[in-house]
Amino acid sequence: MITETILNSVNTPKDLKKLSLEQLNTLADEMRDLIIKKVNTTGGHMGPNLGILETTIAFHYVFNSPVDKIVFDVSHQCYPHKILTGRKEGFTDSDKYLKYTGYTAPQESEHDLFTVGHTSTAASLACGLAKARDLKGESYNVVALVGDGSLSGGEALEGLDNAATLDSNIIILINDNDMSIAENHGGLYKNLKELRDTTGQSQNNFFKTLGFEYYYVEEGNNIEKLIETFKQVKDINKPTIVHLHTQKGHGLKVAEENREAFHWIMPHTLDAKPDEQAEFQEDYNSITKDFILNKIQENKTTIAICAGTPGVFGFDSSFRNKLGKNYTDVGIAEEHAVAYSSALAKAGAKPILNLMSSFVQRTYDQMSQDLCLNNSPITMLIHWGGISPADCTHLCTFDIPLISNIPNMVYLAPTSKEEYIAMLEYSYSQNEHPVAIRVPAGTLTSSGEKDNTDYSILNKFKVEESGEKVAIMGLGDFFELGKSVKTELKNRFGFNATLINPRFITGIDKDLLENLKNNHKVVITLENGELDGGFGEKITRYYGNSDIKVLNYGSFKEFTDRTPYDELMTRYRLKPELIADDLKQLI
Amino acid sequence: MITETILNSVNTPKDLKKLSLEQLNTLADEMRDLIIKKVNTTGGHMGPNLGILETTIAFHYVFNSPVDKIVFDVSHQCYPHKILTGRKEGFTDSDKYLKYTGYTAPQESEHDLFTVGHTSTAASLACGLAKARDLKGESYNVVALVGDGSLSGGEALEGLDNAATLDSNIIILINDNDMSIAENHGGLYKNLKELRDTTGQSQNNFFKTLGFEYYYVEEGNNIEKLIETFKQVKDINKPTIVHLHTQKGHGLKVAEENREAFHWIMPHTLDAKPDEQAEFQEDYNSITKDFILNKIQENKTTIAICAGTPGVFGFDSSFRNKLGKNYTDVGIAEEHAVAYSSALAKAGAKPILNLMSSFVQRTYDQMSQDLCLNNSPITMLIHWGGISPADCTHLCTFDIPLISNIPNMVYLAPTSKEEYIAMLEYSYSQNEHPVAIRVPAGTLTSSGEKDNTDYSILNKFKVEESGEKVAIMGLGDFFELGKSVKTELKNRFGFNATLINPRFITGIDKDLLENLKNNHKVVITLENGELDGGFGEKITRYYGNSDIKVLNYGSFKEFTDRTPYDELMTRYRLKPELIADDLKQLI
Repeated sequence: MITETILNSVNTPKDLKKLSLEQLNTLADEMRDLIIKKVNTTGGHMGPNLGILETTIAFHYVFNSPVDKIVFDVSHQCYPHKILTGRKEGFTDSDKYLKYTGYTAPQESEHDLFTVGHTSTAASLACGLAKARDLKGESYNVVALVGDGSLSGGEALEGLDNAATLDSNIIILINDNDMSIAENHGGLYKNLKELRDTTGQSQNNFFKTLGFEYYYVEEGNNIEKLIETFKQVKDINKPTIVHLHTQKGHGLKVAEENREAFHWIMPHTLDAKPDEQAEFQEDYNSITKDFILNKIQENKTTIAICAGTPGVFGFDSSFRNKLGKNYTDVGIAEEHAVAYSSALAKAGAKPILNLMSSFVQRTYDQMSQDLCLNNSPITMLIHWGGISPADCTHLCTFDIPLISNIPNMVYLAPTSKEEYIAMLEYSYSQNEHPVAIRVPAGTLTSSGEKDNTDYSILNKFKVEESGEKVAIMGLGDFFELGKSVKTELKNRFGFNATLINPRFITGIDKDLLENLKNNHKVVITLENGELDGGFGEKITRYYGNSDIKVLNYGSFKEFTDRTPYDELMTRYRLKPELIADDLKQLI
Repeated sequence: MITETILNSVNTPKDLKKLSLEQLNTLADEMRDLIIKKVNTTGGHMGPNLGILETTIAFHYVFNSPVDKIVFDVSHQCYPHKILTGRKEGFTDSDKYLKYTGYTAPQESEHDLFTVGHTSTAASLACGLAKARDLKGESYNVVALVGDGSLSGGEALEGLDNAATLDSNIIILINDNDMSIAENHGGLYKNLKELRDTTGQSQNNFFKTLGFEYYYVEEGNNIEKLIETFKQVKDINKPTIVHLHTQKGHGLKVAEENREAFHWIMPHTLDAKPDEQAEFQEDYNSITKDFILNKIQENKTTIAICAGTPGVFGFDSSFRNKLGKNYTDVGIAEEHAVAYSSALAKAGAKPILNLMSSFVQRTYDQMSQDLCLNNSPITMLIHWGGISPADCTHLCTFDIPLISNIPNMVYLAPTSKEEYIAMLEYSYSQNEHPVAIRVPAGTLTSSGEKDNTDYSILNKFKVEESGEKVAIMGLGDFFELGKSVKTELKNRFGFNATLINPRFITGIDKDLLENLKNNHKVVITLENGELDGGFGEKITRYYGNSDIKVLNYGSFKEFTDRTPYDELMTRYRLKPELIADDLKQLI
């Protein structure tokens, strides 16, 4: 049974323009229900999309997409936009819930300009569109939609600084819900508050100092007010900020009241009984958190740092409260996070910096110059590195090539709980090197035995089981895969392969590699990340002038997009039987 | 004969405190003469150091370094600081002119906190020092000295945003001489001008919007005024900006009047006769400039982009004027430069982005996400890549690992003028890929024959001379080295090696590599950059399961520091006779 709805009549943004204000408001209610139902079924970004619903309707009512262009920052708030631009079936038809990505995707629609998933890019991208328009002598609106949380990123600030000097139309909508993923951090946010508190009237105005025209909308979830302001700024011929005071999670009480928890939710979060308390299970996050709390007890200069995504590491508000002044969330500002940590260490403090693999990409020069060139002894924990069925914007396969080719860096790959703890202890206690640890992404593995390795002896690989003919190097969380490969080789070919746990990503154990030549013909490297520029290639280079054959396994140099894990593992031949097949001709 | 000077009595900052204002002014004159003489002899940063002389004297007069900490941004303005902190011999004794680096260097002095050479880092680093101090419960001043040109960088803006929220002492001196290396770009600079024009009184104040206390010094080269203000802010307990209006090149008329030319000078610039006009000589810069101008004639959407360092590519003011609106200098804002270029291309314009190898490090995520994930067909020219005797802060050996492991990127390595032009034409005309070209850093090489290669057929290596036994792959400007190796092998071993020009850094020619197996035993790769994560390792990985031996040559994973070129080439065995030695056992 198809209910008669306003949305039935809306297939393109043009259809919106025929609706009355009352109908637009009804449409918002319909869309809200669809988004809540869909996101609660599949998981996804709840708060951001509910917060921006009315803005999106007003935008498409006033502007003429795709002639007028809208660039979403992060684009985790594009669900209403997708509904209004020909993709509503992804929300009305549960069979098609997964048909469209959760981010803007040019291959889906001419209304999507860029594939985006990292923050702080929209002002820069809009700037380029506007300049191209001007060079061509064309005339249309270029609009960027940027959340307040994204403003702390260097790219956003560089973009705003440059956008302000464009002598033509560029309109930047600031979606200010007083919230990043977690709470905001930075002086800029005090200014946003001052502007909200004065309904945009304060003379002390960050955007105006850069030279922007400035408009403020207090009721950022009121379609009528939004339309009014958008009509005012449409076709404006100078760089313009429209500061929208919106409410994250608007219209869903539990999301309005739990803004961090409802930024992104797991499937069926709304159905969960409130008294259901997940049983505590030890994992790499809990180990990290315990380690930090213990070290703060021992040494008051211990400090945990993150860059806007504490939830990714399980740093919930209760944990953050325990840390107190021994915690800095720098906001989405990874470059600053690295330089800040380096200086903390130089001054004798004990920084433990936490970054997600995909977001460590947002800082390279700082790792090279501020950190490694200065040899500052920080502990940098890289979380979630590895192959996954993630969106193309959130892949975590590039951190090894990115980090491990920087001089002076020590990048460690633990294979178990005990190794992780030992590496944390080593990194924390030493004063010689910047140390990064690739926190295993999978389930916790435990040997049950304390690891007493002295990691200050760099680049010493561990032979876990001595064998012959083939040596298998299973790096980090692929050590388990290495075990399976060993078993497969035993079953299929009848010999005992050597099994090695490299532990160090950033250097090779030349003595060990040399020794392997005595009774091995083939070395196999397994790494949970990109092959190009990665760990395995260094092993191969070492053996380049010898008779040893080397087979490298890892992910390819490619952007995958929500590709199932098993499909990727097959494509990359990261399976014992496939590796044994490859090996057949060589032994 | 030793002249009696004030400087004779100044060996540490403490000695300054005994001097009268008159003596301090005389000291400034003495130091100015020394800096002018030294820099004119060795080359170096003239304008920045003359501009900051009085600030440095006043700083050390008022504050107590090394208890109070000063962090220099870029640190190319630290010569006066070096003179006052025990290293004056580097300026008074011409035999010791090269004893000290041109940047802050902790190994030289306890008054230098960090090894710094890239911009925009000081606020972040100072933030870390201040936080460590607070965690320890200590009490001293943390001061950052930041040039106005550095403020446009993302890291600086992230740092300021965070510094503003420190609930304690941090003092950021803004050295505002209304000049980056070239002129400034960005909305922020209009605000700095407004503040200068109102002697700091304007209510529209960028720094205040972030929450800083704000002080303004109109006479930024007046020691008395500087001392007065520094005394006011010393021991202040909140984040504070001191905005100094200084004059770049102060006290040297020709430097005051030619601020861009005298930012950094070659040796004996002051001695050159003014009518001496260098004869025009074609080089890779002139080819680039001609190409851009021609394309603008053909297509009005052609646009050259750089990030604050136009001089590095020979983009002098006369060239920039010719470009007009078809030129954007985004200021020191490499992240924005990449995203901006990507969007220009997406909107159908023809961006040609110019970055120096060392500074392309300042943008990675933007290359990955904004550019390559979106497959935007920009032309990105990477200048000065390769091994050099540069300072450790300005090495150019890391761009291949950084860029070439990003999916979708096409990174090209021309070996001659003709190839460079053909690659420029290819990149400019295509619409499929982001294309980077590694502009050769050395002298121009010309084959004299037009290159008609179709570069749209990706990853096709060129066999320049067919031979046997050994195949030499000379990448980019190391193709010439490849030729020499070939000659050496012929002379020493009597056979004709195969000589290959790979041309593509980002992919391998599998057909060619497979064919080489027929009559070759060894493949040699030569690349002008870091081996780890570079080009050669991909070749080695390909041959990992075969009998082909591979020898990879390039620079090591290390920060070198003003190491002579020849020493490096020997260390890396990048010499025909050394390579032939290595090869001896294998053939």
